[in-house]
Amino acid sequence: MLGRGTSFNRFFRHRRQFNKLSGATSEHQRTNENHSYYKYAYIGGAATAGVLGFKHFVKTAKLDHAKDETMSEKKLENLQIYKQEEVKKHGKDADRIWVTYKDGVYDVTDFIAMHPGGDKILLAAGAAVDPFWALYSQHKTKEVLEILEGYRIGKLDVKDVPKIDFEDLSNIKTENHRLTVETIKGKTVDLSVEELKKKYKSYTIGSVIQCAGNRRADMNQYKKVQGLMWEGTAISNAEWTGVRLRDLLADAGIDVFDDKIKHVHFEGADVDPTGTPYGASIPIEKARGDEVIVAYHMNGVDIPRDHGAPLRVIVPGNVGARQVKWLRKIIVSEKESDSHWQQKDYRAFSPAVNIGDELKWNTVPSIQEYPVQCAICSPAPNTKVDRGDETVDISGYAWSGGGRGIIRIEVSVDGGETWNSVEMEQEEKQDQEHMYAWTLFKAEVKIPPGVKEFNIIAKAVDRAYNTQPETASGIWNVRGLIHNAWHRVPIIVKD
Amino acid sequence: MLGRGTSFNRFFRHRRQFNKLSGATSEHQRTNENHSYYKYAYIGGAATAGVLGFKHFVKTAKLDHAKDETMSEKKLENLQIYKQEEVKKHGKDADRIWVTYKDGVYDVTDFIAMHPGGDKILLAAGAAVDPFWALYSQHKTKEVLEILEGYRIGKLDVKDVPKIDFEDLSNIKTENHRLTVETIKGKTVDLSVEELKKKYKSYTIGSVIQCAGNRRADMNQYKKVQGLMWEGTAISNAEWTGVRLRDLLADAGIDVFDDKIKHVHFEGADVDPTGTPYGASIPIEKARGDEVIVAYHMNGVDIPRDHGAPLRVIVPGNVGARQVKWLRKIIVSEKESDSHWQQKDYRAFSPAVNIGDELKWNTVPSIQEYPVQCAICSPAPNTKVDRGDETVDISGYAWSGGGRGIIRIEVSVDGGETWNSVEMEQEEKQDQEHMYAWTLFKAEVKIPPGVKEFNIIAKAVDRAYNTQPETASGIWNVRGLIHNAWHRVPIIVKD
Repeated sequence: MLGRGTSFNRFFRHRRQFNKLSGATSEHQRTNENHSYYKYAYIGGAATAGVLGFKHFVKTAKLDHAKDETMSEKKLENLQIYKQEEVKKHGKDADRIWVTYKDGVYDVTDFIAMHPGGDKILLAAGAAVDPFWALYSQHKTKEVLEILEGYRIGKLDVKDVPKIDFEDLSNIKTENHRLTVETIKGKTVDLSVEELKKKYKSYTIGSVIQCAGNRRADMNQYKKVQGLMWEGTAISNAEWTGVRLRDLLADAGIDVFDDKIKHVHFEGADVDPTGTPYGASIPIEKARGDEVIVAYHMNGVDIPRDHGAPLRVIVPGNVGARQVKWLRKIIVSEKESDSHWQQKDYRAFSPAVNIGDELKWNTVPSIQEYPVQCAICSPAPNTKVDRGDETVDISGYAWSGGGRGIIRIEVSVDGGETWNSVEMEQEEKQDQEHMYAWTLFKAEVKIPPGVKEFNIIAKAVDRAYNTQPETASGIWNVRGLIHNAWHRVPIIVKD
Repeated sequence: MLGRGTSFNRFFRHRRQFNKLSGATSEHQRTNENHSYYKYAYIGGAATAGVLGFKHFVKTAKLDHAKDETMSEKKLENLQIYKQEEVKKHGKDADRIWVTYKDGVYDVTDFIAMHPGGDKILLAAGAAVDPFWALYSQHKTKEVLEILEGYRIGKLDVKDVPKIDFEDLSNIKTENHRLTVETIKGKTVDLSVEELKKKYKSYTIGSVIQCAGNRRADMNQYKKVQGLMWEGTAISNAEWTGVRLRDLLADAGIDVFDDKIKHVHFEGADVDPTGTPYGASIPIEKARGDEVIVAYHMNGVDIPRDHGAPLRVIVPGNVGARQVKWLRKIIVSEKESDSHWQQKDYRAFSPAVNIGDELKWNTVPSIQEYPVQCAICSPAPNTKVDRGDETVDISGYAWSGGGRGIIRIEVSVDGGETWNSVEMEQEEKQDQEHMYAWTLFKAEVKIPPGVKEFNIIAKAVDRAYNTQPETASGIWNVRGLIHNAWHRVPIIVKD
């Protein structure tokens, strides 16, 4: 197994000062400015890239700086204290919208358009986000809290701080959890986790989970996009163990070759305050494949809560958004899931569609298989190297969707004029037609003569000879999804 | 069905004056300079692109010019007459190598390195190619003959012209043709064409056949490659009817889910002078798919000879080289085909491997699924347009391997800075997950202001959000295979 062991760490970097959307942003767009926050837990939480030397992605310089500005002990002491009734005046129809979290008061007006969950944030306007976050526990990470702190305006009167047993609400008890399979005849399979483990044969597969927003920050450098500014770290690789989805379907009396069945839907146990669960679907051709499992182990142990305990559907080769966590329901259908995350997000528009244009979601298909991807993890951008060293050590990952193995990775230090193939490390148990785990690479690249700075570029080729575009020019899209242009890392040469 | 009706026409353009390989080219390379000629028949012959306005590809200006130089009646009259015994002196060990074809004498020394069949051409050195071409009938096209005419040095004495009944040799009689399926137990299915038609259910599928050398001429413009200089016309689309390969395999007692079976081999009835038939294989996962058929009809009629009569295996979504014509044998195996065309051609090297480097064929996989492709068919490169017209009408095709439907096509006239999505025409019977037919497009593009010339660029995105690279920079390979960079058509603006 590649890259296990650090699977529970999260490595990413969040730019606090990302592009503010103009005040003219329509409500419609706000709605589309959705789910990346959630992905943070759905997917990003699984990031295991640390093993590769992703340290630069966790550099906390910017975050610490933010903290300095907004959270220093001194400043916190001096913060104004608000009563709940004052906060209440800043509800969804107010000029400035406030929320509270624990004892903090936040003016989130400027954040609404950037909220990955869209205007759902308004459900908490003038009130506490605590009950929402108790359900959407993915918010409760150091990084999200740091973003929130950027909007801090004061402290809530200690008497008004909500008393909620967050942990109880956010935990799903494995012993009570049940998974059901629904057909047109109704609920035909209804199992506890233990029953599931006992009843079906288990399979283990090394598989990447990548967020459609991975490398969005790169795309944003080409031209502004909407979403949280992921670097190349919204990706993970782990070994998952569970039962084949098709065995479950067969047990439910479903013929996976029945022409009427076109899609398989998944529902998570995480519901929003309106009771709507997270949902997604995959085509039946994928669902009946060998590789799709309902997993209960991640890297040989029970799946941790943030990764979807006790059950998560693993759809190797597809985008993370379809690999539903906290899985409680499987439904076969003639139609795609009508979930928000299937229909109104995770679809990449044409570069012809710009910020402010109407987003015609039904004109683009839901993202399923991922295209070929490659990123350099080390060194960090703008690393200073000594010319005397002559070479720079680099490492990174590559991966492609649909089980298409990486057949080679090339590196250039002259803008793509010449290339060198690099050494690859691949999952031994998988072949090029069924490669769901990532490919790691390492190389020693020569510092080009006579330059003060240069870019290290890496790119990969998959089994179907798919390649990556040179820049974001042809793939730029308003939500910054599926950025897979050549990865460029600028290096500074000290003479 | 898209694009049928003109399926039997061939549309392409051959640059007579393509790059001559240096005299230093090693024998090894010559061997690798193989099969495109054959593809000419294997694949190119199926080109149906005329429907799209491929006229510029058949412009005969260059060819006519060549003809003027070498074949004018006047010149032919003046040609020297050689006896067979003189030709014989120019055998494979001579300084200058001659061959004859009908009554023509040709000095092919400079062509040997470019011969797609490698040094097999030497088998005819100092003698007639007629017996070889009787078998490799794909040579007998107007275009190949025109290439040959470029090397004409004289006329063969009428008494020495070989008498061969070419037509008899090159025809396979449908009524005598048999198809066999071989397993480790031996020949388990042995059928006539009529028996095959009667015994199994028939299926019809619209499918593209694309040569791995399609658009090689484009790649050659970036940097010199080896092979015949195809423009974007080594591709076709037709409706094929036949029986499922997996039904044939089942009938032969083969369990297509048997772990020991990894590949299915195909053998054609066309053998080279040493008796070796054309061969290729596909992975079993592909072979057992719904879409793979042994076809007997092309566009509703018996497959014409040049397209593989009476039987051809159609592998929708894969490269043309695996869709073996004149099919006579199917063999299941643990190994890939060890045919020359599977092992020593149709594999794309890294841009790090240059002309003259050793080609380590086993370091790159055989091409199977094709990546996403797109080309503008009309207008022709360097078309002159009137500024007063304001717009230019364009049309073209897009397609991707693995059944991945084209989800959109975009066009740019400012180098890729801005794009417009264009109208697409797709096979109605196929969905985005199973789209094997090509997607046609038409658009009216605006002539940009204030320019004397500009490029029209087109590119496509497939169902897995695979895209095309901007240029050949990252995909260039020594054999010029699978060129799928953005297609650019230069246009001249007359004020």
